[in-house]
Amino acid sequence: MKKRVFVTLKPGVLDPQGRAVHHALDGLGFDGVEDVRIGRLVELELADGVSDEKVAEMCEKLLANTVIENYRIEDAG
Amino acid sequence: MKKRVFVTLKPGVLDPQGRAVHHALDGLGFDGVEDVRIGRLVELELADGVSDEKVAEMCEKLLANTVIENYRIEDAG
Repeated sequence: MKKRVFVTLKPGVLDPQGRAVHHALDGLGFDGVEDVRIGRLVELELADGVSDEKVAEMCEKLLANTVIENYRIEDAG
Repeated sequence: MKKRVFVTLKPGVLDPQGRAVHHALDGLGFDGVEDVRIGRLVELELADGVSDEKVAEMCEKLLANTVIENYRIEDAG
């Protein structure tokens, strides 16, 4: 069973990495880029029966810093 | 217009970050975790009219290291 966890910075939290990428895209001549936000994608291969509550607990304890980050869990087939 | 780019390591490429997270999850007592792969999520806020080809070019030139990484572009509403 595969689950995907998307970890993104909460709105309003400064994203220096995103800023740097945005700056680099401008430097490469890409027009039309208004904002860039960088997050993490964690792909978990799990044994059958591991509940979403358990995956949420993994996020709360390790995968996401819930002070400044949000997380979203998705099935990945 | 918002686009999401998922950058993941190609299958077979060693993922030390994923290994470390996997090891930590085991250490925290989470059973049933068979594998962990870590990727990047790039959220792009773009002016209307920026084509997927242009986003793919951003990936090829900057956002992904296409030697060891795959990327996938998704609309994000």
